[in-house]
Amino acid sequence: MSPGSNHLPRKSEIALVERLRAKAASSASGRGLLAGIGDDCAIFNPPRGRHLVFTTDLLIEDVHFRRSTHSARDAGHKALARGLSDIAAMGATPHFCLVSLQAAPWTRPAWIDGFYNGLLTLAARTGTALAGGDLARAASFTSDIVVCGSVPAGCALLRSGACPGDALWVTGSLGASALGLATGKGPAWRRHLRPEPRLGAGRFLRGRATACMDLSDGLSIDLYRLARESGVAAVVDRPLPVFPGASLEQALNGGEDYELLFTAPAAMRIPAVRDGLPFTRIGTIAKGTAGRVDFFGTKLEALGYDHFR
Amino acid sequence: MSPGSNHLPRKSEIALVERLRAKAASSASGRGLLAGIGDDCAIFNPPRGRHLVFTTDLLIEDVHFRRSTHSARDAGHKALARGLSDIAAMGATPHFCLVSLQAAPWTRPAWIDGFYNGLLTLAARTGTALAGGDLARAASFTSDIVVCGSVPAGCALLRSGACPGDALWVTGSLGASALGLATGKGPAWRRHLRPEPRLGAGRFLRGRATACMDLSDGLSIDLYRLARESGVAAVVDRPLPVFPGASLEQALNGGEDYELLFTAPAAMRIPAVRDGLPFTRIGTIAKGTAGRVDFFGTKLEALGYDHFR
Repeated sequence: MSPGSNHLPRKSEIALVERLRAKAASSASGRGLLAGIGDDCAIFNPPRGRHLVFTTDLLIEDVHFRRSTHSARDAGHKALARGLSDIAAMGATPHFCLVSLQAAPWTRPAWIDGFYNGLLTLAARTGTALAGGDLARAASFTSDIVVCGSVPAGCALLRSGACPGDALWVTGSLGASALGLATGKGPAWRRHLRPEPRLGAGRFLRGRATACMDLSDGLSIDLYRLARESGVAAVVDRPLPVFPGASLEQALNGGEDYELLFTAPAAMRIPAVRDGLPFTRIGTIAKGTAGRVDFFGTKLEALGYDHFR
Repeated sequence: MSPGSNHLPRKSEIALVERLRAKAASSASGRGLLAGIGDDCAIFNPPRGRHLVFTTDLLIEDVHFRRSTHSARDAGHKALARGLSDIAAMGATPHFCLVSLQAAPWTRPAWIDGFYNGLLTLAARTGTALAGGDLARAASFTSDIVVCGSVPAGCALLRSGACPGDALWVTGSLGASALGLATGKGPAWRRHLRPEPRLGAGRFLRGRATACMDLSDGLSIDLYRLARESGVAAVVDRPLPVFPGASLEQALNGGEDYELLFTAPAAMRIPAVRDGLPFTRIGTIAKGTAGRVDFFGTKLEALGYDHFR
C-alpha cells in the first residue's frame, strides 16, 4: 500500500536525502562506517574485541516534545540525546545512528533541516555518525532513532548486576526536567529542552559499577526496574540530590532527567564530583523481594512515566 | 515532556514487555546476540571477518497498511519483510531486529500481540532474533524496524557498482502488489499482504551481481536511483516480467514488489529460475547521463512512489 498522502514538490525526497547525505558526510566521520546514506543499508566494520550495543528510541510530537515550546533543533537534539543516554548507561562509546522520520503535514523542509541540525550538532560533539534512516509522511510527526555503540567485550554495564550490600548512586540532580516542564523557564527548562547524555560518566563506571541504567522515566519506576532485573531489593535512606526548586514528587516520578542510576561495591571509591558532574550515594542494595524499593522506611510505588499506564 | 496520553491498565507496559521478552526468547536465538529485551541496550558480539549492514523502515497506518484490510499479523509480517528486503538487497544474512512501536488509541493488547506474532513468524523462518525496541502511545500507529545483518567483509552488494555493458536483471515479477492493492483479491492481493524478502536470491548474487537494490518504490524510480548511484545510464529493451493481470503502469510505478533489481557482467551465468524464483534480464547498463533510463527508445520518468512528492 502506497497511496499518495501529503505532497511536496516533485523529487523533493531525493533532494532532501541529498541534503541529509551532505550534512551527514560533513559531520562525524564514523569510525568503521564504510557506507552510509544512499544505499539499501549502512555498512559497518565492527571494531575487534568489542561488543556492540544497540538502542532505539521514539520521539513523538505532543508526547516527547511540543511544537509550541520546542524548536526543531531542540527536537533533533532530544531525539539523539535519548538514544545516547542509553548508550551511556551501558558504559559504551557511540559509533553511529540511523534516524527514521515520519513527517507531518505541518513539517516544512526548513523544520526538517533544523531537526537534523540539532541532531547533528550533538552527534558531532559525541563522535556519532549519521548512517542512514527512512523518511515518510503521515498525520503526525514521529522520529525513531537507533544508536549503535561499543564496549570492550564483556564489559557492558547491565541492569542485572546489582548485589546485596552494593551502594546505590545517581549522577547529577533529579527533578530538573519535570520542574522545567512545569515552569517553562530558567535552568530547569533548559535542562528539559536539552538533556545531556552522561557518556563520560558511563565510560568511567565501566569496571566500577555492578549495574547501571539511565533515568528516563523517573527514579521510582527505574529503580524498581533495576532491582527487579537484578533480583534484589533497594533501600533509599540518604537525601536525594533534588534539583533546586524541584519537588520530591518531581525528583521521584518526573522522568526525563537522563541521569545515570548505578550500583557499585560499597568499598569502591566513587568521586563526589567528576568533570563537574556530582555523584551522590542515595542508598544500598539489599536482599528481599525482587524490585521492592524501600524509601526511608516506606515502600515506594513505581509511579514514574509509563506510556502504557 | 511526558504528559499522560492514552491509558491502559497500570503496569501494562511492564506486562507487555514481559510478554514480548518471552515471545522473543522462544523465537530465533540470534547468533551473537548476548542480551536482548530488558536492558537499556541489546548487546551483540559481531562475527569475525564480516561487515554488518543496517537498515531501518517505517510502517505507518494508512500509508503502508490499513486496519480495514490488513490483519495485525499482516502488519507485523510486512514491518519485518520491508527491512529484510533491504538486507537481501545487500546480499546479507539477517541477525536481529529492533522494533519501535507507537501504539494508537485503537491499538488493543491483542492487536499488538498479533502484530508481534506475524513479525516473529517471519523472524523465526529467516533466523532473525527480536533484540529489543521501544514502546509509546500517540494518536496514530507507526512501527519502525531496524534489521542488522552481515556479509563477508567487502562483499556487500551496493547500488553503485553497475558498469556500462552489464546486464540488467530483476527477480520474480512486477506489479503484483499494485494489482493486489487495486483489486483486493487473489494471488496479487496475497503478494501485497505478505511480501517475501528475497534473502536466498540476495545471498546467491554475492560475487555475481555488480550492483543490487530492492524494488520498494517501483522500477522507474528505483532503476533511476541505481543508475544514478552508479553514475551510468540504463536501457530497458526486453519484456518485463509483468505479474499476470497487472498493467505496465503497475509494473513500472506500482512499488512494494520487494523483488531485487541487479546488474551483472554480461558474461555472468545467471539461471532463469533458482529455488522457484525467476530471474529475468530486462536490459543493459550504458554510458550516459547518470540516472537516465531509456525504456524501449523513450526516456522513462521516475514515477514510482515518493513519500515527499
